[in-house]
Amino acid sequence: MSKNSTFRADVLVEALPYIKKFWNKIVVVKYGGSAMEDKQLEKSIIKDIILLRYIGMKPVIVHGGGPEITQEMNKQHKTPQFIEGLRVTDKDTMEITEMVLTGKINTRLVAEVNLCIAEDQGNGIKGIGLSGEDAQLLMVKKFDSLDLGYVGEIEQINTEIITLLLEKDYLPIIATIGVDNYGERYNINADTAAGELAGALKAEKLIYLTDVDGIFRKLADAGSLISSLNLEETQQLLTSGQIQKGMIPKLKSAQRALEGGVKKVHFLNGKRPHSILLEILTDSGIGTEFVISRDEG
Amino acid sequence: MSKNSTFRADVLVEALPYIKKFWNKIVVVKYGGSAMEDKQLEKSIIKDIILLRYIGMKPVIVHGGGPEITQEMNKQHKTPQFIEGLRVTDKDTMEITEMVLTGKINTRLVAEVNLCIAEDQGNGIKGIGLSGEDAQLLMVKKFDSLDLGYVGEIEQINTEIITLLLEKDYLPIIATIGVDNYGERYNINADTAAGELAGALKAEKLIYLTDVDGIFRKLADAGSLISSLNLEETQQLLTSGQIQKGMIPKLKSAQRALEGGVKKVHFLNGKRPHSILLEILTDSGIGTEFVISRDEG
Amino acid sequence: MSKNSTFRADVLVEALPYIKKFWNKIVVVKYGGSAMEDKQLEKSIIKDIILLRYIGMKPVIVHGGGPEITQEMNKQHKTPQFIEGLRVTDKDTMEITEMVLTGKINTRLVAEVNLCIAEDQGNGIKGIGLSGEDAQLLMVKKFDSLDLGYVGEIEQINTEIITLLLEKDYLPIIATIGVDNYGERYNINADTAAGELAGALKAEKLIYLTDVDGIFRKLADAGSLISSLNLEETQQLLTSGQIQKGMIPKLKSAQRALEGGVKKVHFLNGKRPHSILLEILTDSGIGTEFVISRDEG
Amino acid sequence: MSKNSTFRADVLVEALPYIKKFWNKIVVVKYGGSAMEDKQLEKSIIKDIILLRYIGMKPVIVHGGGPEITQEMNKQHKTPQFIEGLRVTDKDTMEITEMVLTGKINTRLVAEVNLCIAEDQGNGIKGIGLSGEDAQLLMVKKFDSLDLGYVGEIEQINTEIITLLLEKDYLPIIATIGVDNYGERYNINADTAAGELAGALKAEKLIYLTDVDGIFRKLADAGSLISSLNLEETQQLLTSGQIQKGMIPKLKSAQRALEGGVKKVHFLNGKRPHSILLEILTDSGIGTEFVISRDEG
Amino acid sequence: MSKNSTFRADVLVEALPYIKKFWNKIVVVKYGGSAMEDKQLEKSIIKDIILLRYIGMKPVIVHGGGPEITQEMNKQHKTPQFIEGLRVTDKDTMEITEMVLTGKINTRLVAEVNLCIAEDQGNGIKGIGLSGEDAQLLMVKKFDSLDLGYVGEIEQINTEIITLLLEKDYLPIIATIGVDNYGERYNINADTAAGELAGALKAEKLIYLTDVDGIFRKLADAGSLISSLNLEETQQLLTSGQIQKGMIPKLKSAQRALEGGVKKVHFLNGKRPHSILLEILTDSGIGTEFVISRDEG
Amino acid sequence: MSKNSTFRADVLVEALPYIKKFWNKIVVVKYGGSAMEDKQLEKSIIKDIILLRYIGMKPVIVHGGGPEITQEMNKQHKTPQFIEGLRVTDKDTMEITEMVLTGKINTRLVAEVNLCIAEDQGNGIKGIGLSGEDAQLLMVKKFDSLDLGYVGEIEQINTEIITLLLEKDYLPIIATIGVDNYGERYNINADTAAGELAGALKAEKLIYLTDVDGIFRKLADAGSLISSLNLEETQQLLTSGQIQKGMIPKLKSAQRALEGGVKKVHFLNGKRPHSILLEILTDSGIGTEFVISRDEG
Repeated sequence: MSKNSTFRADVLVEALPYIKKFWNKIVVVKYGGSAMEDKQLEKSIIKDIILLRYIGMKPVIVHGGGPEITQEMNKQHKTPQFIEGLRVTDKDTMEITEMVLTGKINTRLVAEVNLCIAEDQGNGIKGIGLSGEDAQLLMVKKFDSLDLGYVGEIEQINTEIITLLLEKDYLPIIATIGVDNYGERYNINADTAAGELAGALKAEKLIYLTDVDGIFRKLADAGSLISSLNLEETQQLLTSGQIQKGMIPKLKSAQRALEGGVKKVHFLNGKRPHSILLEILTDSGIGTEFVISRDEG
Repeated sequence: MSKNSTFRADVLVEALPYIKKFWNKIVVVKYGGSAMEDKQLEKSIIKDIILLRYIGMKPVIVHGGGPEITQEMNKQHKTPQFIEGLRVTDKDTMEITEMVLTGKINTRLVAEVNLCIAEDQGNGIKGIGLSGEDAQLLMVKKFDSLDLGYVGEIEQINTEIITLLLEKDYLPIIATIGVDNYGERYNINADTAAGELAGALKAEKLIYLTDVDGIFRKLADAGSLISSLNLEETQQLLTSGQIQKGMIPKLKSAQRALEGGVKKVHFLNGKRPHSILLEILTDSGIGTEFVISRDEG
Repeated sequence: MSKNSTFRADVLVEALPYIKKFWNKIVVVKYGGSAMEDKQLEKSIIKDIILLRYIGMKPVIVHGGGPEITQEMNKQHKTPQFIEGLRVTDKDTMEITEMVLTGKINTRLVAEVNLCIAEDQGNGIKGIGLSGEDAQLLMVKKFDSLDLGYVGEIEQINTEIITLLLEKDYLPIIATIGVDNYGERYNINADTAAGELAGALKAEKLIYLTDVDGIFRKLADAGSLISSLNLEETQQLLTSGQIQKGMIPKLKSAQRALEGGVKKVHFLNGKRPHSILLEILTDSGIGTEFVISRDEG
Repeated sequence: MSKNSTFRADVLVEALPYIKKFWNKIVVVKYGGSAMEDKQLEKSIIKDIILLRYIGMKPVIVHGGGPEITQEMNKQHKTPQFIEGLRVTDKDTMEITEMVLTGKINTRLVAEVNLCIAEDQGNGIKGIGLSGEDAQLLMVKKFDSLDLGYVGEIEQINTEIITLLLEKDYLPIIATIGVDNYGERYNINADTAAGELAGALKAEKLIYLTDVDGIFRKLADAGSLISSLNLEETQQLLTSGQIQKGMIPKLKSAQRALEGGVKKVHFLNGKRPHSILLEILTDSGIGTEFVISRDEG
Repeated sequence: MSKNSTFRADVLVEALPYIKKFWNKIVVVKYGGSAMEDKQLEKSIIKDIILLRYIGMKPVIVHGGGPEITQEMNKQHKTPQFIEGLRVTDKDTMEITEMVLTGKINTRLVAEVNLCIAEDQGNGIKGIGLSGEDAQLLMVKKFDSLDLGYVGEIEQINTEIITLLLEKDYLPIIATIGVDNYGERYNINADTAAGELAGALKAEKLIYLTDVDGIFRKLADAGSLISSLNLEETQQLLTSGQIQKGMIPKLKSAQRALEGGVKKVHFLNGKRPHSILLEILTDSGIGTEFVISRDEG
Repeated sequence: MSKNSTFRADVLVEALPYIKKFWNKIVVVKYGGSAMEDKQLEKSIIKDIILLRYIGMKPVIVHGGGPEITQEMNKQHKTPQFIEGLRVTDKDTMEITEMVLTGKINTRLVAEVNLCIAEDQGNGIKGIGLSGEDAQLLMVKKFDSLDLGYVGEIEQINTEIITLLLEKDYLPIIATIGVDNYGERYNINADTAAGELAGALKAEKLIYLTDVDGIFRKLADAGSLISSLNLEETQQLLTSGQIQKGMIPKLKSAQRALEGGVKKVHFLNGKRPHSILLEILTDSGIGTEFVISRDEG
């Protein structure tokens, strides 16, 4: 038996304690960013998530899709507008947003999940797409603080449909469109939606797949990657001003998720191959993990 | 007690035998055409379908959306092309088709269904949208006879997800997009898809909501409405050349549905208020009904 | 489409919110009085109750049968005796009472219910008769205050058998005979029994079908019909002395039922065609409704 | 340990193989005749049947009540009439029959069963009365051969309600009234009904409790008791003319029951204490047993 | 009917109240001592326990096996050693103990149970052997007070496997070997284990089958058998010094079992035929019963 | 991310198709031989089998224990005897065999399984030991062809207890003792028992863990390892005389298992670390696999 074989077996054996620990637990994966633009990478990430399902975890995929929305607006010669960095979503923009998220990205991901399952002769599991108006999954009201048009904040999450699908061997893929009490649809920040959903589902883990290796203590200092954060440290970090812009909503959503009952939040680089598997199934923690306090992690 | 009251009660009582007969039975409603363009009408049709659900039937809504696809193509300055009257669907057109059907019409209908349920303080039932790639509901292959691009014909229908949702008090609304073995999505004729799905679900009824009062024996002869058709008569009609173009695929799909086990197919005018309720719950049959043979109807 | 058709559809649509609201809820109907003496009326009332069952409610019929008891006593040349207006029930009278309620009226109603279901090809639902000794449904002790012989007051209600039958698509019809700890049977006032049973079942509604249009503010003043009553007003009414004799036990039982958890009690004229349907399924409330306080109705 | 104790234990141990063999099996007991007239005897028989229930069998009691019907007719000065030994049942007689069977005897037996269970602090099991119109248990048509008025012969038995009640720890007690397709009730011969019901329920045993020790080979020859009969011998016996009148319908019904799938029919003397227990639970077979052929017994 | 028959029936009838009372209740039987050395007696005891199962109770057999352990040690020329009357259990002795209890006595009892069931054509029930390491049923730690080697005291009992087997018609037979957190097996006093297990299972009864007729007030005074004991009296007895050595651990375990929720503990002479049946199913209480206080017995 | 990490991820991903393919499938592992003598190796093998359980397969462990039986016989100064290479099993030897298999090896394996699960904080799964008399799992009769004493051949396998335990998250570990119709226990060849059991359970795979790398084409030719065999080739091999003695019963049992419905049989070297994982979860097939015909593998 070659050294290679031995090593392969060791990797599988190393995975056992993690498989046991996370058995039957819900893992919410927020997927988006550059990882979405590379077909090969996307397929690899999806296969990793399916693997989690097969070894007994209950993954839920949440996705946004900013770049493709912009691209579609361009086709229709519409110029994105921003107030304080937030996209202004007029009626036409909202229509495009919904069509892209629910009718283009979500359908592509669902088809890809089912294709990956079929390619390996998988049985039992099927991917299914949802967006917020399905079974009133994500109930929102118009965003209060600023007038951004059709941008919503979550008021209520009806998790029954997710619970049903997870029990019955479906893998839910969720487009972050919300619906209000009048049937109107709204755009929701996908990072926020993922955090709220993870909390509502009492998920074991919430994973943000981003374009960088995690949270850094200092901007532009690649050596300052933080491997572990707790609530208190995060608070300091947010006030330090040294944190990357795009990370702020993620960190804030992560805080809320932890307070809502999620055990651990991970920030992983979606462009690194199999970062999810390595984080969940091996001893080599990667990226940044975020817990309420280190004792409970 | 006023005469009015008496009549109201009579109507309710008249409904009883039909409620009993169709209890727990699946009813597939193909919805589309002009009925879709009138907000008020749409709401009324949806409320009627929800009523069927509450009195014990299991409705499934299937919809197309040709006009809105064309409208969206126009926005992007694309010109629809046709071969032998069938829409040629190149990659771009397919993308638009999917976005409109799944990301615009389907989401609007789902939101509307849930809104209608909520308005009357309904409990238990929730609308949920599906398109063909969800749980691989509609598996297709590229249309053979002509090269129309991304136009598919159904090869397999995986009804488990529908059955699960119907058992658990969801009302499924289905966009007629299909998916092939390689994860590629295709446009499917909505009339055909409705017929195939009704057959696969062993539906009690398949209802085509159209823009006219039913099937006519002679073109342009309003007096020639046929109230009841069987397989043999339909065959004659199709060869008579006297039948309205748009009805041909509906009639052919209806034939296949009946042969697949559906008990009865109805052609109703969606623009007439409450035509579904009147057909199903009152003695006054309207539109055209189509059965294999009159003895079994 | 005729105006008639339109109106028919409107009636059905109007029913939807009520169907939704009362879905899966228990409705106890106390049936008796003159409505019982008219075959045609009885059939009509039974059909209405079956309709409630088919559209998702869970009706339970409770009946008395004073006039037929008297009639049977006459056949045996026995003279009814009364103390303070209450029937004295010696051993022989009790035997006749039980035979008439359980062996004549109850069997007739059960047969009629099943006949009505069968006439319309109904499936799934079956009527079944119970009286208080069945599964010790109605446990009583001898009436305390006065010595009336075999007249009982309810001590305990074992609702399990009702719950089982309602779950399994049976429609229970209950004769108000009670049984004590020694296996002895007693007559129970049917209005009281209906109220207690509705409370024990946590019914949504309790409906008294009577011979008059409801509760009147003043005796012999047809214009003084009260459409809505709350607990406080009822108390005043009972002390006003202006209330019809036969209504007093009904009102008192209704009070107890409301206090026991029933949401609303209705007093309807059983002789008016379809009063139950009109009250439950249309906007036109009829008769008198009685709630704890108007805010909760 | 006294000899007495030893013997007690032996009796219990002797019962074990029978308890195992008949575990979960249905036993139909036709109860009637003189055994019904002795309060003490009735209580003892009922306790024995309850014992069968507690040790795992599923007894169903079927009863008639000829003498009490005659007694009630006398009270109303009606004279029973017979054609070829069969009671003519006019409308009035039918009403009395139903009242006595369903409203007097059945209710008394149900109350007694529940009393016996309660006396020994039994848990779980409850007696419940049924007659043929309940859930359309016994569907009949008018007896053909002779015009006897409201005398019916069984056309269909809907056993679902019995099966449900047996599954849920109820003990059903059945009055042999039938109902026809028009809701009309008919008298049915109780021996015949017991046989048909046992067949429909695929009972393990059908027990006729009679007033004599079993079937005799010769009239008026006490020494000619037959301990075991098969189909062939029964045929000979019936043609011998030596058989007691009252036994003929029982034997014929027993034949049909055996042909319908019942394993064994017993004729026991209900007046002998605990004859059911001795027959079922001890080695000392008593009375007459009747099987299709001795090999299968 | 002979006097004999009458008596047989009386015995069966006398059993009814006890059958009702103990229906579905767990009865733990500690089996051991001389009763184990007589093949005929063992079979008789096992048949009695199976009878309990068939009439609706849920017996669990717990056994030790001291004499056979000593016998096996002799074969290997090992001399049992004792400290303060307790067996010192070195590694070799523990191996022998486990082999004898789990691999010899337990297997023999299981085989015997299944043989007895089969002999009487019993259906449904099967015996199954367990020892403490199975599903970690009996978790122990090394006995603290004295260094006795591999002697354990129970820390935790995982009753799920017992509950599952009892639900599914298995009869569990348990060897009193315990397992610690490191997978090491230990000997446990069987009387103690039976008591702890009965408490953990919330058993209705715990029965100690011993070699004597019960608890005696005075050593060597056959006339001083105590028929009933409560906690207080037991305390006095234990301090009186007049109690048989071997009974002390049984009495102490019985105390703990009662405090843990067991309703009643019995001390019966296993050598008296059918003592279990006589105690549980007849009016003639035998042996000594032990309850917390006489009022609750 | 290091090369090491990449490789780890690749191994996990490579496992996915196999995890999918064998999800919910039964895998019988025959464990024995030298692998049993090395504590470290045993723990490693057990951990691998537990891993299979956690990723959704249903492993069943079957074990023998020849060397330990011989060792125990030596302690008692008994000399093993053989006829035609088969162990003669007199009464004493059988007693020792049963004690060692059920009371020593089985208990040790069960304790080890539960220890391994606990060490990694596993939840849900528990090991449980069975031998053939438990729930009459392995019914045998005395071996016919030769008089070997208490050596049995399997007549019937009652798999219900295994099925129940697999459904409820237990991991069964089976000692190959059989029981006959008279409750007598017999030794069974463990290889044969594993094969028969795998067939009765319709297992997906049967794995023989041996001391060599698989089946060799030529004795003493390490280069002649056969990676894949079908039925026909096996037949030739068996007649070639070139096959290792100890492999013959394994190969014959494997044949029967395949004929009984098992999909594939593997011969793996238990001494090579993680051979089970490498065979089942990686692309690098090791050892010898045996299928009915190569097309169906």
